[in-house]
Amino acid sequence: MCQLLGMNANTPTDINFSFTGFCQRGGATDQHRDGFGIAFFERSASGVGLRVFHDHQASAQSPIADLIQRYPIKAMNVIAHIRKASQGQVCLTNTHPFVREIWGEAWVFAHNGQLQSDFLQHLPAVPEVYRPIGNTDSEALFCYLLNALRARFPEKPESEALFAFIYALCQQVSAYGLLNVLLSNGAFLWAFAGSLLFYLTRQAPFGKALLTDRDVTIDFRDCTTEHDRVTILVTVPLTQNEAWQQLAVGEGVAFHNGAMIFQARPERPHYLSIEEGLAIARRYGTGV
Amino acid sequence: MCQLLGMNANTPTDINFSFTGFCQRGGATDQHRDGFGIAFFERSASGVGLRVFHDHQASAQSPIADLIQRYPIKAMNVIAHIRKASQGQVCLTNTHPFVREIWGEAWVFAHNGQLQSDFLQHLPAVPEVYRPIGNTDSEALFCYLLNALRARFPEKPESEALFAFIYALCQQVSAYGLLNVLLSNGAFLWAFAGSLLFYLTRQAPFGKALLTDRDVTIDFRDCTTEHDRVTILVTVPLTQNEAWQQLAVGEGVAFHNGAMIFQARPERPHYLSIEEGLAIARRYGTGV
Repeated sequence: MCQLLGMNANTPTDINFSFTGFCQRGGATDQHRDGFGIAFFERSASGVGLRVFHDHQASAQSPIADLIQRYPIKAMNVIAHIRKASQGQVCLTNTHPFVREIWGEAWVFAHNGQLQSDFLQHLPAVPEVYRPIGNTDSEALFCYLLNALRARFPEKPESEALFAFIYALCQQVSAYGLLNVLLSNGAFLWAFAGSLLFYLTRQAPFGKALLTDRDVTIDFRDCTTEHDRVTILVTVPLTQNEAWQQLAVGEGVAFHNGAMIFQARPERPHYLSIEEGLAIARRYGTGV
Repeated sequence: MCQLLGMNANTPTDINFSFTGFCQRGGATDQHRDGFGIAFFERSASGVGLRVFHDHQASAQSPIADLIQRYPIKAMNVIAHIRKASQGQVCLTNTHPFVREIWGEAWVFAHNGQLQSDFLQHLPAVPEVYRPIGNTDSEALFCYLLNALRARFPEKPESEALFAFIYALCQQVSAYGLLNVLLSNGAFLWAFAGSLLFYLTRQAPFGKALLTDRDVTIDFRDCTTEHDRVTILVTVPLTQNEAWQQLAVGEGVAFHNGAMIFQARPERPHYLSIEEGLAIARRYGTGV
């Protein structure tokens, strides 16, 4: 299993503060040593550009992670993933996030959890356009999701229909294993929680934040305007002094410009304690 | 217009020496200031992994280019591109190389040249599976190539049929502009020359090489074995003291494990001098 970090903002924002704490969990404060990846969607004249960094080294030791902490990339959306291999070897091919183009957009996907090896056989058959390159359950699921989307929507649908479709598929798939997902096309950031996933929206009035994994404090008043709105999603909260919201087990949400634009959850939502989430992760043979 | 750099090797090899010279042309010894990109195919347990770095900054100044020079990545295939924007704005979306998955493989494409804006209308219509994300002629051509390949070959064909198809398409397209191409799936490296493209195969007995763009010398005897074979492809030769081979105008070649495995060229091949190549580039409004 692994940990996820996502960001969705209404203005180009660097994720250095959050990433500095997050990447400590890749080998320093936690055991996710089997590589990391981070995708940045950056606004530009001709649309939203994508830049992805992968390394098979632990993020706490990787020169690439080090570069990212020193070279602030201003992004509208970010998805990062640190890996504790549960399925598939430790190698670049299996390093999240995964990227494919659909409807002329780059889509980025990262998964925390584990699916039973035959999960695809329980899902409706769809024509195969996308195929996995590596051998993880996660990339196989991403390809299935895109194949299902293409089969249902030859052209990109309205957001409501899109998110309802993705939510229904996440619910279906989560019957066959543990599924925490982050997904972005550079405009929206989608999240589905199967165990632990927290979010936090920072907006005016901004204040100070103190990392959990490293002794680093930031005062967001020094680097924001009153119009900024930034939502961070993460497996386990990154700061000690902010009010993180938890997603219920089985909840799906989407953010745009830092604001929630879609939310769906079970009729009787329940929330795992971090300890329960850790226990589930251990049952799948890996740590959160 | 732009410059291209490619590597194809029979053993994981770092491209630091070549890249050190090449990226000087991105803003220092030449004018390709509009971003750069480099893709590394790295061998791993579950196949060939891909790692791509992009930056909108000139490679001579980019912290990412600096990292790549300091962090030797051992790859089987590399494609790098430095850009002098001729079509499409300067932004990440338009930064080569471009990546798509076909038949469960990551394919990487970079183009040096410029095509007339209606070039697609002159080509046979094919079902549209891949769509460009940015607005360059280059990405539009890459998507067309993959759409044409999928239409012709639902499954990946034998190499000979594959290269013959790609060569025929390159010939067709080059009637509508200037086309120099590098293309790789992590196993082969394909090249098509529309103006300037040179290659060099290094193998035992290895010797010394001296860069053209920077005062750097390497002795390959210090970092190779007698079984190593590495081919470098580049727009303009990178070293002063080695015997670079030139591709004829309209020639297409493919390398695997550092050796040429496909070659096709016009019946009466002709070769441009570097000066002639530069003049053609100027006619397209940009420098080589």
